[in-house]
Amino acid sequence: MQVEITQDFINDIRNNISDANDRALSNLFDEMHHADIAEILEELNFEDALYIIKLLDTEKTSDILTELDEDTREKILQSLSSEEIAKEIDELQSDDAADIIGELPEEQKEEVISQIEDVEHAKDIVDLLRYDDDTAGGLMGKELIKVNENWTNLRCVREMRRQAENFDKVHTIYVVDDNEVLKGRLSLKSLLTTSTKTPVKEVYNQKVTSVKVDENDEEVAKIMQKYDLFVIPVVDEMNRLVGQITIDDVVDVIREEADKDYQMAAGITEDVEADDTILQLTKARLPWLVLGLFGGLGAAYIMGGFEEALEKHKILFFFTPLIAAMAGNVGVQSSAIIVQGLANNNLRGSLWNRLFKEVGLSLANGIILALLVLGYGFIQGFDMTVNYVIACSLVIVIIIAALIGTFVPIVLDKKGIDPALATGPFITTSNDIFGILIYFMIAKVMLGF
Amino acid sequence: MQVEITQDFINDIRNNISDANDRALSNLFDEMHHADIAEILEELNFEDALYIIKLLDTEKTSDILTELDEDTREKILQSLSSEEIAKEIDELQSDDAADIIGELPEEQKEEVISQIEDVEHAKDIVDLLRYDDDTAGGLMGKELIKVNENWTNLRCVREMRRQAENFDKVHTIYVVDDNEVLKGRLSLKSLLTTSTKTPVKEVYNQKVTSVKVDENDEEVAKIMQKYDLFVIPVVDEMNRLVGQITIDDVVDVIREEADKDYQMAAGITEDVEADDTILQLTKARLPWLVLGLFGGLGAAYIMGGFEEALEKHKILFFFTPLIAAMAGNVGVQSSAIIVQGLANNNLRGSLWNRLFKEVGLSLANGIILALLVLGYGFIQGFDMTVNYVIACSLVIVIIIAALIGTFVPIVLDKKGIDPALATGPFITTSNDIFGILIYFMIAKVMLGF
Repeated sequence: MQVEITQDFINDIRNNISDANDRALSNLFDEMHHADIAEILEELNFEDALYIIKLLDTEKTSDILTELDEDTREKILQSLSSEEIAKEIDELQSDDAADIIGELPEEQKEEVISQIEDVEHAKDIVDLLRYDDDTAGGLMGKELIKVNENWTNLRCVREMRRQAENFDKVHTIYVVDDNEVLKGRLSLKSLLTTSTKTPVKEVYNQKVTSVKVDENDEEVAKIMQKYDLFVIPVVDEMNRLVGQITIDDVVDVIREEADKDYQMAAGITEDVEADDTILQLTKARLPWLVLGLFGGLGAAYIMGGFEEALEKHKILFFFTPLIAAMAGNVGVQSSAIIVQGLANNNLRGSLWNRLFKEVGLSLANGIILALLVLGYGFIQGFDMTVNYVIACSLVIVIIIAALIGTFVPIVLDKKGIDPALATGPFITTSNDIFGILIYFMIAKVMLGF
Repeated sequence: MQVEITQDFINDIRNNISDANDRALSNLFDEMHHADIAEILEELNFEDALYIIKLLDTEKTSDILTELDEDTREKILQSLSSEEIAKEIDELQSDDAADIIGELPEEQKEEVISQIEDVEHAKDIVDLLRYDDDTAGGLMGKELIKVNENWTNLRCVREMRRQAENFDKVHTIYVVDDNEVLKGRLSLKSLLTTSTKTPVKEVYNQKVTSVKVDENDEEVAKIMQKYDLFVIPVVDEMNRLVGQITIDDVVDVIREEADKDYQMAAGITEDVEADDTILQLTKARLPWLVLGLFGGLGAAYIMGGFEEALEKHKILFFFTPLIAAMAGNVGVQSSAIIVQGLANNNLRGSLWNRLFKEVGLSLANGIILALLVLGYGFIQGFDMTVNYVIACSLVIVIIIAALIGTFVPIVLDKKGIDPALATGPFITTSNDIFGILIYFMIAKVMLGF
């Protein structure tokens, strides 16, 4: 089933397109999964990709569209008429349909919606468009199977048969009352193992975890992970069943969140990819570099203040990049562990415990590193007093860097700011400045300049 | 359904435990999800947690055990007899059971397995123990529903009814031939919508994506994400159906992988948490700090080689932390984007394109940053020649740092090494050294010392 997308394979497709060999292309793509076709289209140039989209039928292309990169999809949608887009939308599940319509320019949205054939489908989409992308409502689809608590098992099967015809997959059978209020779920097992005359009321499971439509998407992801759920029902303020979120959409949320944290730690804001334009990448990267630059200027300014020590203790100045680097590295390590602990909700114990531990940890690491520096200085024949100053400051700088790295994310989190902001350039830069300042202050005291 | 775990709530539980108020505790935990109970146990001290485990019945405690942190679970299992552990294992799905038995000391494993009541279950577990943790076999469970392609729809329902009694959830109905070879899957929809006399052969879906038992777990995660699968069947070398992987286990793989990459970028190897011991944390953190230290010593050594410039151009030395920081930041940014592109499989275009783009991007960023430095130097009244040298080197250092950051992960990936290694301390350290070396070489040429 899986396709290995080689360069030769792509070249074959290119040749078939330039020869307009439609039959060969149709045969090839007919058996292929839409996710694979989307991957192939990303490798082709835009004209060739559009050619394939126009060639295949909407049942296939609609699924392909949902799998494409946003940029590619946008370009393809621009080349389709509103009527053609409406046809694609007709084939999609309500959540994917709403996502695509949400990406269209304002003036085109209405035009496309008005041309959707299935009015119920259009209503569902309009309903979904009301919700923010990063809420449960923005993630959910309207397609689900529900039965009334007053029905018998037999009627359930009949009704489900009717409802199921519209959907590819049945995940969970929800039980609602006459007011559409979610009461529980009916397991396939009890449907299979009880008599057809049994009323639903007697066999359904009342334990069902649901989320409210306005719940944050990351919270939804946490709940589904914690309770190992494949689907979760979404209810409105009156507990009425309004939709269902499937785990595949939540996996995307988890990945995006992880990617965002990773990028933030590397000093990249906004969601960018390697293939974005130079302008997009600069916008995401430059602010953090400017921050780093100010840090460097700050360090230079501090060193300027200790200029008089330069003549007597040159070596001190040779070690500034080392002090800054160690302060930065330790700070990033400490903050990364805290940021992950906060994200995974496994940060336990009091602040004092954490303080005590960080001091112990950085003291242990610091002493080992200081001994290495002392050894190096000894071999190089440095002035041993200066050498002691460097080693001693290193230990203190490491302890302070670890404390900054530990407490900045905790404080940010308490203030409701994403603690992931704290890892990376922010900690590195502030630790560079603090590190160098502390280093020279200790040197001043110990060497008396 | 969800429980808010407050300090008051925990204190209540502690009081109930010290009063041996078993009825109140049983009532409380009876209605609670095992994942919530596990979270509560993590907040209690070990004796209290063990008290709860001993109090509740194995149907509940077995599920709680699977949700606990590995350290806590290990301690609790040490306090249970092999017979007690076997009873817990009896209640678990085969994959969770195998995971727990895999954590036991070698000598205890056999003892526990021999005391499992259900022999079929024990066989399944022994079978699963053969597979590596990071393969499809290590992730899969043996519980699944399968029907023979030669059966009728009616027989399917009857057989499923029998098989389903053993399982909580039915995800997919697999179709196999007489040799247990996986042929396809039967959708609930077709089961519901076709006549009872229809043979399975005529209605099952032959399109089914499967993985081999020895497939790498990250690859399994990629496949399930790409094709939006909730479950995936696992087959052996002869394509016989041997198990099934559910998406909740894969979500854990995705999270662990993301956590690992995040930690690696922060200079932390091995999987550690904030609550690990100082020794564990030191083992994970110190190697990268030592690497950083060598980088700093290298930088100091390079600066020592340019000592003669110190008298005339002090300012040059004040800017070394800035140069090192910018080289590090840019390198980390570039490598992070490449590492993510490689992980998400969306790195397209040739190496030359990438080279061209990185040079363009870093030239743009570099010039803006250089202008800021020039402005600062002008305001501070620095010697403008030195100032030009700093600005000019900054641009060149940024370009080279970006190229190192881009190509090191690509090369590592080509050589089969995890490119995530390249982000963080590795890139920072090498860019520190290269940055400072290039900086002083340019200064030497331009200022002629």
